[in-house]
Amino acid sequence: MEYALGIDVGGMSIKGAVIDKGGKIIYKYVYECKTRAGNDEFVANLKVVLDNLKDYCKENSIEVKGCGIGIPGLVDSSKNIIVSASNIKTENLDLNEALRDYNMNISISNDANVACLAEVKVGVAKNYKNSVLLTLGTGIGGGIVIDGKIFEGNKGQGAELGHMVIETDGVSCGCGRRGCFEACASATALLRYTVEEMQADTTSLMWKLVNNDLKSVNGRTSFDAAKEADPAAERVIYKYVKYLSTGIMNLNNIFRPEVFILGGGVSNQGDYLLNKIKEYCQRYNYGYKNSVIPDIKCASLKNDAGVIGAAFLVL
Amino acid sequence: MEYALGIDVGGMSIKGAVIDKGGKIIYKYVYECKTRAGNDEFVANLKVVLDNLKDYCKENSIEVKGCGIGIPGLVDSSKNIIVSASNIKTENLDLNEALRDYNMNISISNDANVACLAEVKVGVAKNYKNSVLLTLGTGIGGGIVIDGKIFEGNKGQGAELGHMVIETDGVSCGCGRRGCFEACASATALLRYTVEEMQADTTSLMWKLVNNDLKSVNGRTSFDAAKEADPAAERVIYKYVKYLSTGIMNLNNIFRPEVFILGGGVSNQGDYLLNKIKEYCQRYNYGYKNSVIPDIKCASLKNDAGVIGAAFLVL
Repeated sequence: MEYALGIDVGGMSIKGAVIDKGGKIIYKYVYECKTRAGNDEFVANLKVVLDNLKDYCKENSIEVKGCGIGIPGLVDSSKNIIVSASNIKTENLDLNEALRDYNMNISISNDANVACLAEVKVGVAKNYKNSVLLTLGTGIGGGIVIDGKIFEGNKGQGAELGHMVIETDGVSCGCGRRGCFEACASATALLRYTVEEMQADTTSLMWKLVNNDLKSVNGRTSFDAAKEADPAAERVIYKYVKYLSTGIMNLNNIFRPEVFILGGGVSNQGDYLLNKIKEYCQRYNYGYKNSVIPDIKCASLKNDAGVIGAAFLVL
Repeated sequence: MEYALGIDVGGMSIKGAVIDKGGKIIYKYVYECKTRAGNDEFVANLKVVLDNLKDYCKENSIEVKGCGIGIPGLVDSSKNIIVSASNIKTENLDLNEALRDYNMNISISNDANVACLAEVKVGVAKNYKNSVLLTLGTGIGGGIVIDGKIFEGNKGQGAELGHMVIETDGVSCGCGRRGCFEACASATALLRYTVEEMQADTTSLMWKLVNNDLKSVNGRTSFDAAKEADPAAERVIYKYVKYLSTGIMNLNNIFRPEVFILGGGVSNQGDYLLNKIKEYCQRYNYGYKNSVIPDIKCASLKNDAGVIGAAFLVL
């Protein structure tokens, strides 16, 4: 059996794992760290994880093919350079250089690309060649797999699917433009719509669900109330599904993948959310009756997608 | 030298040519026809062109590798089926079946894909591996070449770049949605903005340029007046460039190609238009100072891109 190391870099922790060719996690190590002090601290934290994994492999006589790393930001995968990753306060970091002592085959990619690769290799998109993954979280991350391989554009700087304007002059986005997909359809946007509708309707069931405390609003609040037919909550869901589906249909017309995979906390709503999106997409699919409609599914590997997909960068 | 037939199907004519491996047109034949009466009439017209090209090849002892055909609509290129092409009133047409008697290697694709392939092979994008082409005409056609090959999605039904919503709830689009890129940034949209601004400002220089006749407004009217610093015309250009650049930056964040190629009548504005788009893209490029900015160029092969690119489907 072949093995590789997979590392999933997050804002609050770095997860590392030893993965086999079948995508199985042999060993996993999570290092809690606030890697926000720049390149040097990030590299030091990364080495803690790498050393831990190497020790495990040595003790268990496991040879690895290399190490894949998923990064939450813009990377130049052709040169293993982190171009800009604001969540970990890291930029222009050459990982080949920084990890030279490990004398190991290293490959990096964006975290959403890596998650998409994991789902295609051993997850919900296993039988599909062309997939687009959207992680619905604080922002929207995008991963694209074409013919079984990650597509990431020139110098690895494409696949930023969250930064597609779907509402010109819409709400401000962290990227400097307005009305980006992620500004309209991330979990953050869902919370914004929830608070707005609660403020507009003080009789909404949503107030009861959060004990009259806006700070307790979360991604489930509107879904829970909508399932009880609360009108304000239904407006939230209608708006959210409209923007999310608009972005999905845009990407469908561009890539026409066989499957869309939705990840991130919002995707825990499962079929209730999927059915609403499918209904929208059926109605507005370009090419009408003669064209193919992609499958839309929820991600299956959850928190392990990062380490598994990262390992598949080198497996 | 290797040769192929290239056929470019349009709403009012079918162009055919014999092309050599270097992209040179050896012979060209244009058949004017209103191919709007359905599948049978379209096939009959196509055969007129094919027969003409075959006769030329026979007389000149030219052996061809096959025939490529660019179609203005949705095709399943894996099966050579025209799925839906409203401009030529054709749908669900199996060209392998219809052209069986010719006993020839046939390959079809969408017309904008084919134009992009031509520019990559022998045109303005010759030294680039990854290109996105936009034809700015009645609508917006999209062509994508990745690693030197056309990318067209599952069953050839992707790359419909004109049908990306950039303004949710914006103006109606022929596809059934609202605020599509083509509804906001095609030549048709440019004319709409021109007429709107003229009606709002009866002192605009644009009225003089069209002899006070709105029917004489064309794609140059606003550009000509803006170059004379006419305020209403400058507003038209500002609005048009804003929408066009918004779509280009969306596609940049998705594909991060090395080059964007602009075709269609509007692209005749050349550097005047390109400079304004580049300025916008420089300002809003995702990833800021560390990320790459694609080249943006005007198409070079003009009306011949269709036949040349079609031939390269089989060359």
